[in-house]
Amino acid sequence: MVSAHSRPATILIVNPNSDVQMTRAIRHRAREYTGMRLRVRCVTNRGAPRFIETYADMAEAAPSMRQLVRTHEDTSDGFVIACHYDPYLDMIKEMTPKPVIGIGEASLRTASVLGRRFSLITNDPRSIPIHEELIRKYHLQNAVASIRAPEAGLSSLTETEIYLEEAKAAFLNDRAEAIVLGCAGLSGMEERIQRRIGVPVLDGVICALFLVEGLIRYGVGTSKVRRYGWD
Amino acid sequence: MVSAHSRPATILIVNPNSDVQMTRAIRHRAREYTGMRLRVRCVTNRGAPRFIETYADMAEAAPSMRQLVRTHEDTSDGFVIACHYDPYLDMIKEMTPKPVIGIGEASLRTASVLGRRFSLITNDPRSIPIHEELIRKYHLQNAVASIRAPEAGLSSLTETEIYLEEAKAAFLNDRAEAIVLGCAGLSGMEERIQRRIGVPVLDGVICALFLVEGLIRYGVGTSKVRRYGWD
Amino acid sequence: MVSAHSRPATILIVNPNSDVQMTRAIRHRAREYTGMRLRVRCVTNRGAPRFIETYADMAEAAPSMRQLVRTHEDTSDGFVIACHYDPYLDMIKEMTPKPVIGIGEASLRTASVLGRRFSLITNDPRSIPIHEELIRKYHLQNAVASIRAPEAGLSSLTETEIYLEEAKAAFLNDRAEAIVLGCAGLSGMEERIQRRIGVPVLDGVICALFLVEGLIRYGVGTSKVRRYGWD
Amino acid sequence: MVSAHSRPATILIVNPNSDVQMTRAIRHRAREYTGMRLRVRCVTNRGAPRFIETYADMAEAAPSMRQLVRTHEDTSDGFVIACHYDPYLDMIKEMTPKPVIGIGEASLRTASVLGRRFSLITNDPRSIPIHEELIRKYHLQNAVASIRAPEAGLSSLTETEIYLEEAKAAFLNDRAEAIVLGCAGLSGMEERIQRRIGVPVLDGVICALFLVEGLIRYGVGTSKVRRYGWD
Amino acid sequence: MVSAHSRPATILIVNPNSDVQMTRAIRHRAREYTGMRLRVRCVTNRGAPRFIETYADMAEAAPSMRQLVRTHEDTSDGFVIACHYDPYLDMIKEMTPKPVIGIGEASLRTASVLGRRFSLITNDPRSIPIHEELIRKYHLQNAVASIRAPEAGLSSLTETEIYLEEAKAAFLNDRAEAIVLGCAGLSGMEERIQRRIGVPVLDGVICALFLVEGLIRYGVGTSKVRRYGWD
Amino acid sequence: MVSAHSRPATILIVNPNSDVQMTRAIRHRAREYTGMRLRVRCVTNRGAPRFIETYADMAEAAPSMRQLVRTHEDTSDGFVIACHYDPYLDMIKEMTPKPVIGIGEASLRTASVLGRRFSLITNDPRSIPIHEELIRKYHLQNAVASIRAPEAGLSSLTETEIYLEEAKAAFLNDRAEAIVLGCAGLSGMEERIQRRIGVPVLDGVICALFLVEGLIRYGVGTSKVRRYGWD
Repeated sequence: MVSAHSRPATILIVNPNSDVQMTRAIRHRAREYTGMRLRVRCVTNRGAPRFIETYADMAEAAPSMRQLVRTHEDTSDGFVIACHYDPYLDMIKEMTPKPVIGIGEASLRTASVLGRRFSLITNDPRSIPIHEELIRKYHLQNAVASIRAPEAGLSSLTETEIYLEEAKAAFLNDRAEAIVLGCAGLSGMEERIQRRIGVPVLDGVICALFLVEGLIRYGVGTSKVRRYGWD
Repeated sequence: MVSAHSRPATILIVNPNSDVQMTRAIRHRAREYTGMRLRVRCVTNRGAPRFIETYADMAEAAPSMRQLVRTHEDTSDGFVIACHYDPYLDMIKEMTPKPVIGIGEASLRTASVLGRRFSLITNDPRSIPIHEELIRKYHLQNAVASIRAPEAGLSSLTETEIYLEEAKAAFLNDRAEAIVLGCAGLSGMEERIQRRIGVPVLDGVICALFLVEGLIRYGVGTSKVRRYGWD
Repeated sequence: MVSAHSRPATILIVNPNSDVQMTRAIRHRAREYTGMRLRVRCVTNRGAPRFIETYADMAEAAPSMRQLVRTHEDTSDGFVIACHYDPYLDMIKEMTPKPVIGIGEASLRTASVLGRRFSLITNDPRSIPIHEELIRKYHLQNAVASIRAPEAGLSSLTETEIYLEEAKAAFLNDRAEAIVLGCAGLSGMEERIQRRIGVPVLDGVICALFLVEGLIRYGVGTSKVRRYGWD
Repeated sequence: MVSAHSRPATILIVNPNSDVQMTRAIRHRAREYTGMRLRVRCVTNRGAPRFIETYADMAEAAPSMRQLVRTHEDTSDGFVIACHYDPYLDMIKEMTPKPVIGIGEASLRTASVLGRRFSLITNDPRSIPIHEELIRKYHLQNAVASIRAPEAGLSSLTETEIYLEEAKAAFLNDRAEAIVLGCAGLSGMEERIQRRIGVPVLDGVICALFLVEGLIRYGVGTSKVRRYGWD
Repeated sequence: MVSAHSRPATILIVNPNSDVQMTRAIRHRAREYTGMRLRVRCVTNRGAPRFIETYADMAEAAPSMRQLVRTHEDTSDGFVIACHYDPYLDMIKEMTPKPVIGIGEASLRTASVLGRRFSLITNDPRSIPIHEELIRKYHLQNAVASIRAPEAGLSSLTETEIYLEEAKAAFLNDRAEAIVLGCAGLSGMEERIQRRIGVPVLDGVICALFLVEGLIRYGVGTSKVRRYGWD
Repeated sequence: MVSAHSRPATILIVNPNSDVQMTRAIRHRAREYTGMRLRVRCVTNRGAPRFIETYADMAEAAPSMRQLVRTHEDTSDGFVIACHYDPYLDMIKEMTPKPVIGIGEASLRTASVLGRRFSLITNDPRSIPIHEELIRKYHLQNAVASIRAPEAGLSSLTETEIYLEEAKAAFLNDRAEAIVLGCAGLSGMEERIQRRIGVPVLDGVICALFLVEGLIRYGVGTSKVRRYGWD
């Protein structure tokens, strides 16, 4: 089943948001990770709101996201959906037999390998219930120490310091053993936090690349029986 | 955090059993998967029973397993424990800050990404309760369709046919959407079963390599706070 | 808080599918239930596939569904989403402070009041995983005896007889104490099944009307803090 | 199945306590809710303690409660048990095929429709474990943000202010999105709290009336197979 | 805390049913177990139905059961409630600081010490939902392999053979590792079944005596804070 | 099945640690509890670390622990493993058909009989995740109010005062109704804490003796089918 790839496999990373800056940052970090082993194509979902925050935002983002996957399906070997809500992940898994990984599912599952309980740190308290729902969907509710987001208005601190405080609280008060950054915007902070607090800090994009690269090399994709089956 | 590796990273795969044939098969498949990207060293736990079946077997295997990891710690970048019971995985995670992955945890978590419910197929009905315990430890009890092992004495069939029958039953009766081969001895059957039944079939060694390769490249290891902490 | 309604309240029932026949049937049954107490407006989601079956169908149905709710928001006092998958229910709840009820959530919760365990009977085996997911979302996984759908091709029986057989099996084999018809197309069968098997059989549209009527009269709607909050 | 009621249906509300004042208040609120649509008969359980607080109180209340239901069974179309402990609800459901709803089950299930997590506020800290048990019985333990009761002796505040403080804490500290008043004595406070805090606040009696009215109109009652079966 | 008992402690076993024959059998077995170490007083609840089967039966049994415990409280050191439904166990625990053990809770918890999953065998299929509820109350739903009761009318077999068949099915089909006899009437069968099937078989009365004897000797009783507190 | 023991049964208590002082203390308390009813032999695991704290310590302790049980199997009627981690309990249960009880499982299960929720107090915060894992293994995660360990450096208090403070916090803040001392070193404190706080406090050794004495007298041991089976 393990296949020899004469040319490097191609991974399509879909940024479900329409913010081009974010796409650029994701692409940069992804290529830094994959080096020459894989080709990474990272696309912006131009039909979406700039930042997906609500259920309505997710619904708005869906049609063009679907279009993006359809356009690139033939020329891609696997897919990463790069928003921590894993929006429409089931729909994309239904569309193709190739591997599709959400950055939410990838980072949450990886965190639970590194320590017994982990915390998710996100940028907006309003997103907490959506993350909770997702964590329950992935059967990880008992592996979570806490989901945290800084309250607005702690203004005398720099942004990094604010997230450092949350990470410290997750570690000291909530007994987290690992931390997941639950927002693409926080990408790149993991090294600083990890160095200061001493716990592993994970970014979802990189974790999704572990899995999608592995599955492509192994030659295994989404199950096409029952849930994600097609005609 | 993403580090450039000038030389390929080295992964130590520990076969907790003392069967040398099994080590050879694991090594072969692992190298087939990693190609030149990684150096794979695959060692036999000579102090163990030939095949670990019981709790006593696991305990017997522990001291020499620990010794193996200690011997190779400095020269390895990550570790795979290649028995589906994940024996002493917590102990090994406690020993080192480098990534350590069990083939049980790796394959079970990967399966739950590919479909909604998966079945584990193993070679001995007596091992079922130990697998159940492990699945519950990883919070995956609600993602499992069934754990199956052929009853002894269905002798008119070849070995492959026997496991094919179990896989079919998992798919048709238990509504499994993916299958995990829960025994190193079954490694290599996945392609045939996948082709015949049409559902993804996973071998634990390959799944563990996904994760350990990713974590090494990312520069992240087991959390050293609380559970797996050391002095 | 209990308010006097000088004129009957108006309930908008959205059929998320584009099948007009189904809308008509839903409207008929709803008005039979509400009589003169409430005004029922039942609309077809013309932008959707004829019958929502897959995740892609749901995503396709979303934009026009949203438009329908927006158009009728001012002139409606409450909303019923009339597809058993409860598609985009979270999005609709986010859109308005008025009560919004899905026929899935309404029938599942009502069934668990009538007996200890209930079965869901639906028309397509492929939909079972989506229903399972929904049931888990509503915390009812331990209150479900089974989810059943007739396999295609049991052709010598009439349609009603086929569902009667499933209902009997739910009652006798799975120990169901109540039955939910998990598909708008089965609406109207409940009386015949109930009479023959002797267990309560629920249709989702009617159950959703219980709740939406009650909430309107009580003057209480969806919480606008946290999950379904808005700006 | 939907039946035309030439005369309004009659609902018997049983106050399991012997406090006549409480019966009067419940009756008043219930009639305010039902208006002329339904006849409400609200009876006091004179054989019970004044306020049911303990398991012994519940047991003492049972025989006369049973007698009340038996006396009124023929002339009632549905039953509401108006104590938040849902005392002997299983016994009453066993007694009759007509719908029987407890105010505990009704309000807890309704709250989980309005928001992701709700808090229960009650008047006595000692009752918290009994409520917890009940919530677990209804499979809602993961939908509860907290159960709160003011500690005795916060005396400088008025009663309403005390409960307002608890509701605020439920909302701000425990992330509740809806609130259930877990004590008949708190009935009537919901409007004030809802106005001040901005989250939906539910009283059990009204929620039970939603369901019992709906079930009567629909012609469906408690399942008489298995758990609540009779001879 | 460990107290020296100059005279043997006295245990009151309450048979919540009014069947005197059953009381005699329970008393006989209990004394066979305790020998001279303890004094066993075994009383019949004459105010109850002959055999408690329904919720109504339990409620009917409560007042005289309470009276029995009150009468004997001063002269008893601990209490066993000898019906597998554990009827009113919470009420009795509330009445006294001395140890009170139900035969349901005792046997279910003991079984889960002897093997990973156990089956409960009872005499009436209608009682299954009540046992299920109880098992969930004790957090043991995931430790149960099955709850079984022979269907009426398997008449060519003797009573013992009928239960032997159920025990075999529990062992072979449901993978039970231990068996609990969930009905006082089955007491005494455990030795025969155990000998024939080779799995441990437990009777609740004896298991309750383990615990109540231990707690009396240790000097520890029911917690009087919160749930079972009194004034 | 209830057997007459002409001579007192012999219980082997294994102290998995190599600290002889601890063995002496355990032996003393055990004999105080059993008096002349049972013979208690309490042995030190000389091959182990002085105090088992980590997974590595447990693994180191295993071979000699196994040897101890093997040496004494013929002359013992039952076994108690006297470390709160229940190290290698599954392995010991696999070794013999006689009853084997861990002090962790015994005390946790007994605590849940005495009150609705209990707290575990241990001596080292680092051990908390191991206890959590164990509690989940025994299905008791929802019966636990908290697991507490004093932070190092609260030095102005005596040792007893430190644990008293934790016990008070468990009772007042976490709503514990009973307390388990999760460390053999705390044995003997239970009386003082119980007297001061008024909640039952349990030591594991005594709780294990309840069960092992009962099972020996009843003639029932560990199930030898499936999980703990042998050849």
